[in-house]
Amino acid sequence: MKNLIVLILIFGLACSQQYQTKYFDQLVDHIGFETGDKTFKQKYLIKDDYYRYDKGPILFYCGNEAPVDFSFGGAGFMHTTLAQELNALVVFMEHRYFGESQPFGTEKESFKKGNNKYLTSFQAINDYAKFLVWFKKSLGCGDDECPVVAFGASYGGMLSAWIRMKFPEIIDVSLASSAPIFLYENREGIDETLFYKIVTDTYEQNGCNTQIHRAMNILTDLINSPVPSFLFKIQNKKILNEINEGMKTCKPITDQDNLDVLRSYIDQAYSYMSMFNYPQEGHFVSKMPAWPANYSCTPFEAINDKSTISQLFQAVKKSVDVYYDFEEQKECTNFNTGSTGEINTSAYEILTCADIVQPIHPNGVTDMFYDQPWDKDSYQQYCQETFGLTPNYDYVLNFYGGKNDEEMKQFTRIIFSNGLLDPWQSGSPTKYISDDLPIINMYAAAHCSDLRLPQNGDVESVIQARIQEEKYIKQWIQEKLPTEYFTKKSQI
Amino acid sequence: MKNLIVLILIFGLACSQQYQTKYFDQLVDHIGFETGDKTFKQKYLIKDDYYRYDKGPILFYCGNEAPVDFSFGGAGFMHTTLAQELNALVVFMEHRYFGESQPFGTEKESFKKGNNKYLTSFQAINDYAKFLVWFKKSLGCGDDECPVVAFGASYGGMLSAWIRMKFPEIIDVSLASSAPIFLYENREGIDETLFYKIVTDTYEQNGCNTQIHRAMNILTDLINSPVPSFLFKIQNKKILNEINEGMKTCKPITDQDNLDVLRSYIDQAYSYMSMFNYPQEGHFVSKMPAWPANYSCTPFEAINDKSTISQLFQAVKKSVDVYYDFEEQKECTNFNTGSTGEINTSAYEILTCADIVQPIHPNGVTDMFYDQPWDKDSYQQYCQETFGLTPNYDYVLNFYGGKNDEEMKQFTRIIFSNGLLDPWQSGSPTKYISDDLPIINMYAAAHCSDLRLPQNGDVESVIQARIQEEKYIKQWIQEKLPTEYFTKKSQI
Repeated sequence: MKNLIVLILIFGLACSQQYQTKYFDQLVDHIGFETGDKTFKQKYLIKDDYYRYDKGPILFYCGNEAPVDFSFGGAGFMHTTLAQELNALVVFMEHRYFGESQPFGTEKESFKKGNNKYLTSFQAINDYAKFLVWFKKSLGCGDDECPVVAFGASYGGMLSAWIRMKFPEIIDVSLASSAPIFLYENREGIDETLFYKIVTDTYEQNGCNTQIHRAMNILTDLINSPVPSFLFKIQNKKILNEINEGMKTCKPITDQDNLDVLRSYIDQAYSYMSMFNYPQEGHFVSKMPAWPANYSCTPFEAINDKSTISQLFQAVKKSVDVYYDFEEQKECTNFNTGSTGEINTSAYEILTCADIVQPIHPNGVTDMFYDQPWDKDSYQQYCQETFGLTPNYDYVLNFYGGKNDEEMKQFTRIIFSNGLLDPWQSGSPTKYISDDLPIINMYAAAHCSDLRLPQNGDVESVIQARIQEEKYIKQWIQEKLPTEYFTKKSQI
Repeated sequence: MKNLIVLILIFGLACSQQYQTKYFDQLVDHIGFETGDKTFKQKYLIKDDYYRYDKGPILFYCGNEAPVDFSFGGAGFMHTTLAQELNALVVFMEHRYFGESQPFGTEKESFKKGNNKYLTSFQAINDYAKFLVWFKKSLGCGDDECPVVAFGASYGGMLSAWIRMKFPEIIDVSLASSAPIFLYENREGIDETLFYKIVTDTYEQNGCNTQIHRAMNILTDLINSPVPSFLFKIQNKKILNEINEGMKTCKPITDQDNLDVLRSYIDQAYSYMSMFNYPQEGHFVSKMPAWPANYSCTPFEAINDKSTISQLFQAVKKSVDVYYDFEEQKECTNFNTGSTGEINTSAYEILTCADIVQPIHPNGVTDMFYDQPWDKDSYQQYCQETFGLTPNYDYVLNFYGGKNDEEMKQFTRIIFSNGLLDPWQSGSPTKYISDDLPIINMYAAAHCSDLRLPQNGDVESVIQARIQEEKYIKQWIQEKLPTEYFTKKSQI
């Protein structure tokens, strides 16, 4: 199994007073005809504090792999800044199988083999499409009124692009933030190792990639050592002691399997810090400082090639604790705990065993990690045993389109934004395709920065990106608004 | 159960020497992830006799509810006229679950409950999309080369529209001939009884609708009579004798159920003759004369209101035999035999119990038939018992779009053609929507007339329609052809 990097935006704090919570009777299956009209309760949030005029715009957030209240906190630019600018009605819809939106009542029941098969990106998109048709009707909107702008972040950004690509009659404009829609095997010229190279770049710029790589190599050499397991502990007693000492492991590591888990624990911290390298402090597994990736290089300042292995891993521990335990609450390192905080990754794993198969992996040469080619056979076996599903590497690009830029040119009015610090840019549209698919690259910006609530310390590129995004959205929704909509607004 | 009117074009004769037959390894399930990469052999035909230049256009026929060799015969305008004009490569692909293209090997196995669930319009569209991606690659075509024009007739016409709506990156232009994409319950302003009114119009113009209606009323009064079944035969002995005598039934009818079957047998003949009211003779269940619907009014010339019931039904028999037995091969009327010739309607029934739910029905007031409101409960029960499926009335328009013209405006480069004698125009785009969705209405033309091979006797509207269609197609495929493509061609 590969490490699962969840494509998620970091959460701001959600203040539940800002919105009303509602539930929509959603079809369990939009595609087949076996479950008939069986429905489940799909959660959504309504925020109407800036909604002034009948038949104004609808800003719709395509829920991603998290409970929707969490996602709300990370998208203040949409639900507050833009909502105010456009006097728009804001809706956040929870993604099926996440949070409370369980098609078979409970998580336990929904995640069962057989029941889990309705967890696909396309079912999710159909949820949103079906809801929006009903929702517009309930507002008394005709199809040429109440333009809908779809927003999404990361995996949700892919959904926001795809829903416009598949339902252009329902979605007028999409903003797909940090959405790696090209990060699939059958994309022309895709580089599956670029993700980890970009992660590495951040640490290189902060001068600690070499020492991290050294630590990784020590772990990797041990993991790959062909010694029989009963000899491993004896032969490597000293080095294991140094690692355990440096990492302050709660339970000392004595075997290769646990070293492998530790290595994942470390590399996930670096990947997530590079994704979440925001200029303000934040909170994911625990609190994180501003520019966490940069900050995480500090412990290596005292380390050089002559430092002991114990000293090196002490620095690694301090470094990854910027992500796992910045407030120093933990007495020791329990590397078996999840690395994604409150996010239940099971549901996202189901997606990655079905359609969302992004075979990113490090190679240890262009990155500071280790060589780990994607192993299709073992991955397929894992998916089949665990979920009864077979990953389809070609599904997304065959189904939604985008194998190359020529295909993309058929689509319009999707804005793709990228942070140039964010490793997910490795599979996102970052180069010009057509005037109808604007691409906004934000230097010195991390994952989904533009969607966050504007705040002190934002880098200029993000500030400018938001201005551009608003401009495109206004321009493209105008045709479904009264001619004087924005003028009238400005006169009030 | 309602009468199933299969949306089919009448077949011309296919000459198998015209094409090569091939098979594509097609995915059983494009949408879910349970069957993994399980494939089946999907049949397709290649016709390359006019294909001259590398990277020329591809004319792709979206197989409909028939073995593909049959469909080939009805689309000579595409595979011969246009192929020659455009020096195009022609491909006909068989629809899954029809003909030889059985996802589970045999018809018997494929049609089983559980296995039949992969028979949906969307799976079919995905078949074509997946094939085309592979096919273009196999020809060495880039995405900006070898433009693809999708063709389809009737149900296949809907597919050809929908594949462009959902896969604009794969299909450059579509010609949807007699495609009732609006004939669904949730289309704004849909009239579900218009189909039978248009059927009736044809017979009214030929002066026999009143007598047909009289016969229908006689049958309907008997069918609706509240007499207990043991009394029915006794009380209605005389009239049943007259009907049996007139219709020359092989086995005399003595009960209401069989009268109902007879009534369906009659109304289907009139519906199909109105669809197939071509100016040349043709062949469906058996040979038919030119203008069969008009011709079928002839037997009523001697009938007036004073004619006996026996005389009336003699005329009905002669009239419907224009459809069932024009060559007078049958000694008596076996009204239990299918009315769709060599077409196996089971597979199409599965579609109509899933997504293709077109609730058309007569009312006996605006048409010459009888009042038969669509009974959702009994239809659902039938579908569930027979196929384990639940019909979804809203699926098509929610999923593909088209609930109203505003939604349709999001789509481009689909040509909709209609014959103004054809009852399926009742649910097809017949009025202006946008410049990018040309609508071509052909007066005095029946179902899918434009797609047929041009021949003597074609009405002028059909001749003109084909000219228009060629013009649009040329204009829209030019951008993916060398600039001198059509010029060069004309110089040779």
